[in-house]
Amino acid sequence: MNADPLAQIKAINQTAAFNRWAGFEVISAGNGEAELGLKWRDDLGQYNGFLHAGMLGALIDTACGYAAVTVAGFVLASHYSVNCLAPAKGSEFVAKARVTKAGRRQVFTSAEVFVVEGGERKLVATGETILIPVEAK
Amino acid sequence: MNADPLAQIKAINQTAAFNRWAGFEVISAGNGEAELGLKWRDDLGQYNGFLHAGMLGALIDTACGYAAVTVAGFVLASHYSVNCLAPAKGSEFVAKARVTKAGRRQVFTSAEVFVVEGGERKLVATGETILIPVEAK
Amino acid sequence: MNADPLAQIKAINQTAAFNRWAGFEVISAGNGEAELGLKWRDDLGQYNGFLHAGMLGALIDTACGYAAVTVAGFVLASHYSVNCLAPAKGSEFVAKARVTKAGRRQVFTSAEVFVVEGGERKLVATGETILIPVEAK
Amino acid sequence: MNADPLAQIKAINQTAAFNRWAGFEVISAGNGEAELGLKWRDDLGQYNGFLHAGMLGALIDTACGYAAVTVAGFVLASHYSVNCLAPAKGSEFVAKARVTKAGRRQVFTSAEVFVVEGGERKLVATGETILIPVEAK
Repeated sequence: MNADPLAQIKAINQTAAFNRWAGFEVISAGNGEAELGLKWRDDLGQYNGFLHAGMLGALIDTACGYAAVTVAGFVLASHYSVNCLAPAKGSEFVAKARVTKAGRRQVFTSAEVFVVEGGERKLVATGETILIPVEAK
Repeated sequence: MNADPLAQIKAINQTAAFNRWAGFEVISAGNGEAELGLKWRDDLGQYNGFLHAGMLGALIDTACGYAAVTVAGFVLASHYSVNCLAPAKGSEFVAKARVTKAGRRQVFTSAEVFVVEGGERKLVATGETILIPVEAK
Repeated sequence: MNADPLAQIKAINQTAAFNRWAGFEVISAGNGEAELGLKWRDDLGQYNGFLHAGMLGALIDTACGYAAVTVAGFVLASHYSVNCLAPAKGSEFVAKARVTKAGRRQVFTSAEVFVVEGGERKLVATGETILIPVEAK
Repeated sequence: MNADPLAQIKAINQTAAFNRWAGFEVISAGNGEAELGLKWRDDLGQYNGFLHAGMLGALIDTACGYAAVTVAGFVLASHYSVNCLAPAKGSEFVAKARVTKAGRRQVFTSAEVFVVEGGERKLVATGETILIPVEAK
């Protein structure tokens, strides 16, 4: 485990071109948890101006990966699922992920995605991820 | 159902800002099936230069949605899952989706994502989507 | 909603032949939550003497259904998933389910399954269920 | 791999007490595929006389496990999901599973469950399973 997991995760986040394009911002990371923020932009949207379901999945997959890294080192996504609970419409989104079980061969995580509007969080999606620990390069 | 489902789906695809940014291209659509293409670009990648797992989900969610539209009219994604089977590395990707069951209240679909290299398709991901039919606007 | 949700759910539980065979016992039910208990018997096991993964799914599906009934009336299971986190070995099991979101057309729930041994609960599985509200008969 | 995978899977099937109780019958097994049959009995049912969703999951999980064993040796279920597409009502059920990808650390499989009535198969459920290869005992 890293002495400063937030700094480590922020650095990892900057190495992924897609994350830089999307504007993913690591809010917190450590002890099997991570929070990831995203500000709305028109090119993140689908037909109706809601956040694209693919972006909900990218937030969940990424936040879960970061939560896993804080306890299991480098990991690869193996499986994830997304539940779209309510229209993902707002000026800002936050994904909050936590490790459910960090096994030797698989790490199980779950996440919630909130719309943040006027300081209030409204749940719009949930998801789960299974990740595989890999030997550090 | 539309007389020319491919033209209809291509038009829908152009209305989603994220799809235009990603460069999703509708290859075929009709009779409960759809194929969606995507050319590799650096800003679609994660740490290791593979296609971001979020983009795999976006391909699956989008192709499944288009397959559903051809038999059930307008739909909203309710749930989807992604299995990452092999490194998604290549110059071109194709998601192939089909409707498993179009019910009155839910449409079940599944998809495969292939890397296309030198004319050969290699399976790199599978996924499923549950969609909700909505009244056309 | 019923005036006495626990009594209602206990009565429903007795109408399902599989639940009677398994020995599912409704521990609590109300306000979008439900707990279901199961005592180990040899005929619930697989090769290695652990609880059969199918029984983990049955516990999750059933507990989630009961949680949903307390807020949404009669429901039908549409989709569920099970994560097997640790060997499900013990003398007693408890599934604890709660509604994440009760929409008009879908109810989303999640559950945890614990082994209970010497008064301590150990998490062995998690799961999710999507249910469809149906008109009461 | 075993010289006679069907005989091997039939023998494994007899070692699981739950499978004996349920009456699971291995119809075929080999080359990453397996078929499992189940005859309706009242104690397999839920409130409405349909096959319990937990039994659909048990069929899917078990058939997928057997498909995996034919190419990957002993495995443990790690994750599975079930889609309930149509009422599972009939005198006989068949689950047909196949391996999608057998990796070193995970085996991905999928399955379909049919009601068999008058010699005709009707699709009532689909599912997926992720399994972990384990060292043979």
